[in-house]
Amino acid sequence: MRNIKIILEYDGSNYFGWQRQKHGATVQNKLEEAIGSLTKEKIEVIGCSRTDSGVHAKGYVANFITNSTIPGEKFKDAINTRLPEDILITFSEEVSDDFHARYSSKGKMYSYTIRNNSMPTVIGRNYFYNVKEELDVEAMINGAKYFIGTHDFKAFQNKGGSVKTSVRTITQLDFDIKDDIIKIYVSGDGFLYNMVRIIVGTLILVGRNKLKPCDVEKIISDGIRQKAGKCSPASGLCLEKVFY
Amino acid sequence: MRNIKIILEYDGSNYFGWQRQKHGATVQNKLEEAIGSLTKEKIEVIGCSRTDSGVHAKGYVANFITNSTIPGEKFKDAINTRLPEDILITFSEEVSDDFHARYSSKGKMYSYTIRNNSMPTVIGRNYFYNVKEELDVEAMINGAKYFIGTHDFKAFQNKGGSVKTSVRTITQLDFDIKDDIIKIYVSGDGFLYNMVRIIVGTLILVGRNKLKPCDVEKIISDGIRQKAGKCSPASGLCLEKVFY
Repeated sequence: MRNIKIILEYDGSNYFGWQRQKHGATVQNKLEEAIGSLTKEKIEVIGCSRTDSGVHAKGYVANFITNSTIPGEKFKDAINTRLPEDILITFSEEVSDDFHARYSSKGKMYSYTIRNNSMPTVIGRNYFYNVKEELDVEAMINGAKYFIGTHDFKAFQNKGGSVKTSVRTITQLDFDIKDDIIKIYVSGDGFLYNMVRIIVGTLILVGRNKLKPCDVEKIISDGIRQKAGKCSPASGLCLEKVFY
Repeated sequence: MRNIKIILEYDGSNYFGWQRQKHGATVQNKLEEAIGSLTKEKIEVIGCSRTDSGVHAKGYVANFITNSTIPGEKFKDAINTRLPEDILITFSEEVSDDFHARYSSKGKMYSYTIRNNSMPTVIGRNYFYNVKEELDVEAMINGAKYFIGTHDFKAFQNKGGSVKTSVRTITQLDFDIKDDIIKIYVSGDGFLYNMVRIIVGTLILVGRNKLKPCDVEKIISDGIRQKAGKCSPASGLCLEKVFY
């Protein structure tokens, strides 16, 4: 038995997220079908994380166990020919038995893309969240600082997760601004259900001057979901990297 | 009878182009259905140009005749609520009887987006053409100069058009480069069938050093389609503006 690690990109627009479902296309389903048709086995692909419907990934990591004799690095092209055009494997290699895409992960980096423009657009609409109100990016950057560090993020999770503790460490929260595009990169040791999208929804309230930057500190310490911002749409979210 | 002009954006990824078809979704079909359901008339929408399957538009212009009493500028929102999410009217107004989206047009500006990266990506794939080979953009800019002016562009059309002359005037051919994205803007008084995409295909050959910049001059004067480059994919093309 061999353990194969893959890194993949996907455009989540047309999927019900990562996780296998009986009805409706998911990325896991598509991968398991593609790899299974290649190796003639029943393949179970282990993913680094569930992603929700409409969320994208550039550096998603997964692994699977196979008896196939295909060299590890050759899986990439062999699987790609069997995948739809919105999923692309960018790397494959054989790894040791103990590698597990989810349990071995030490952290992740997500990006969230906001288009800040009073005129909405249809071009690229699946890859950002359009905010019509003018955003004060300086205020957002100041508010973002309060997220850095180890905190109980229970105000920043939606129901649906299954975790023992809501304490997480955010190591980085950076902004990249080009014209009307505000891209926010968030890195941490792990994320609660919808955590990045709620952080972004809260920062948008800061950018719209509905909250002061320093209010973020109190929202974290109060730990009440309703005090944080809305869960911003899935379209803006992209899993960029997984750290091991 | 009133004449209403509209400006619209559309994401062409899921359409068989602009032109009405009996089978298969087109932008014209969707607009005529939306406006017809609003005004309770059988509406014929006149478009500024046919666009091919997969081609996008940011500033497409159309007009239609109606007996509706809705104020011209109110059509925008009223129609938008009846359109799918990949078509958006950005402007509407009542215009004089003699305005015709196609015949009144004095010129157009298109953009073509190349992603120049050895690693393909699925994110945004419907909005660019990925060229893996490194492109010499300086050479492309030099080659582009030969297109400017009034020429017989018969080497730069595919079969399928129905025009009397292949003489056209290109007034502008500009490059906008950001990271791995090369955006080419082409303006002219009119374009032959697939002309922008063949111009871009030819410039890509220049960028790959398969042609010298000055070869463009001879390809134009020879007027032989086979000497020009391939018709680059529809995904990169976007109708930006129509001039009246």
